[in-house]
Amino acid sequence: MTISYDGSCYCGWQKQGNTEHTIQGKLEAVLFLMTEEAIELHGSGRTDAGVHAKAQEANFYTDCVMDTAEIRNYCNRRLPEDIRVTAVREERERFHARLSTSGKEYVYRIWNSQASNVFERKYLYCFPEALDVERMRRAAEFFLGEHDFKSFCGNKQMRKSTVRQMTGIEVKRLGDEIRIIYQGSGFLYHMVRIMTGTLIEVGLGKREPGEIADILEKRDRRAAGYLAPPEGLCLERVFYETDREE
Amino acid sequence: MTISYDGSCYCGWQKQGNTEHTIQGKLEAVLFLMTEEAIELHGSGRTDAGVHAKAQEANFYTDCVMDTAEIRNYCNRRLPEDIRVTAVREERERFHARLSTSGKEYVYRIWNSQASNVFERKYLYCFPEALDVERMRRAAEFFLGEHDFKSFCGNKQMRKSTVRQMTGIEVKRLGDEIRIIYQGSGFLYHMVRIMTGTLIEVGLGKREPGEIADILEKRDRRAAGYLAPPEGLCLERVFYETDREE
Repeated sequence: MTISYDGSCYCGWQKQGNTEHTIQGKLEAVLFLMTEEAIELHGSGRTDAGVHAKAQEANFYTDCVMDTAEIRNYCNRRLPEDIRVTAVREERERFHARLSTSGKEYVYRIWNSQASNVFERKYLYCFPEALDVERMRRAAEFFLGEHDFKSFCGNKQMRKSTVRQMTGIEVKRLGDEIRIIYQGSGFLYHMVRIMTGTLIEVGLGKREPGEIADILEKRDRRAAGYLAPPEGLCLERVFYETDREE
Repeated sequence: MTISYDGSCYCGWQKQGNTEHTIQGKLEAVLFLMTEEAIELHGSGRTDAGVHAKAQEANFYTDCVMDTAEIRNYCNRRLPEDIRVTAVREERERFHARLSTSGKEYVYRIWNSQASNVFERKYLYCFPEALDVERMRRAAEFFLGEHDFKSFCGNKQMRKSTVRQMTGIEVKRLGDEIRIIYQGSGFLYHMVRIMTGTLIEVGLGKREPGEIADILEKRDRRAAGYLAPPEGLCLERVFYETDREE
């Protein structure tokens, strides 16, 4: 299923103990009502507390005979209004929403103005100081390609590989908004938000664009910039091999 | 001052008794803190409970010596995050935010899709049934010009003139959204929402576009369509004579 959510009021995607306030928790509760099976939903990845998703992907197994449109409608009638199932489809049995991904796109939105944006305030990081987008763009280019992103990983105990492939980064100004679009093979814990905080420091003139190469080389979280807040971040889409065949 | 607000959580613009949950009430409370004067704020017009404004206009008189930027910043530091003062300027003494207006623009946004819009849900009227925009456009043309809009007035006790001048109506489809832009000399209580409800009935095929002329002629609220809900409506801007001189 493809899921859209406003993460403002949730403790993130992943179910934690008896915290009912997670996206996964809300969805599993509805799927249990529907199927009377103890369904486990496998997301394409976790999103943190306060992070949004336009198209998160998740899979589950069921013996339920409802068709895909019925499942979608059933869920949407019972979910809170800030979570919506936008599509449901049947997949091959070996499909796994996390293991089968070929990449993801995240968008980080910065509201770079003295005047705040009343209507989209929950989806923007409000940052009124002047930012030099051209400098941010030059810095972003250093992220492209395959690198060890250990300096941009928020998990200190990370034992697995921190090597990731960044396939695209675009930094654009749309009026008062600066939008950063990240595409890559996969993203580490807090990676997009630390990259964003670092690019903001470059935009402020506190760092040089070329420093990004040194930060990557250091493989040390302390070398990178600050963690940008969650509200500006949105998981835009998740790619699977089948998308590439189209 | 120019004010932007998300009206979702408020009982409308106008202060009512001891209802503190109004936009006017919130603003006057902050202006009182700032000036220690019992300031009365004159809005360009009321907006109903749940209606939004991108640029509402209001004026007040004060002996306070703060400059306009200081006033704006003072207000924004103390206002709730869904109300923002976007500009403050000094005006000629005879200026009155309501009496000096030459016109207004309202925008009504309809989300015309089976899939709901999670992120903009508070600013859209979700209406999933198919609507024929071309029919709505033909109907809208009958509103143009000067008419007695009594059939589109929600106030049964209205004693004053119900004649208004509609200077522009645009009905456009933007993907899943249908946006109706109304410009006119002034608007009666509930007028935009009743016009919208009536245009939706035309879009559904329940009424013919040409019926608008008959409804106007009847001068009877019962002849018009239903009252569309407040969440889709936004006061976009208020015009003053000075705008025309520019």
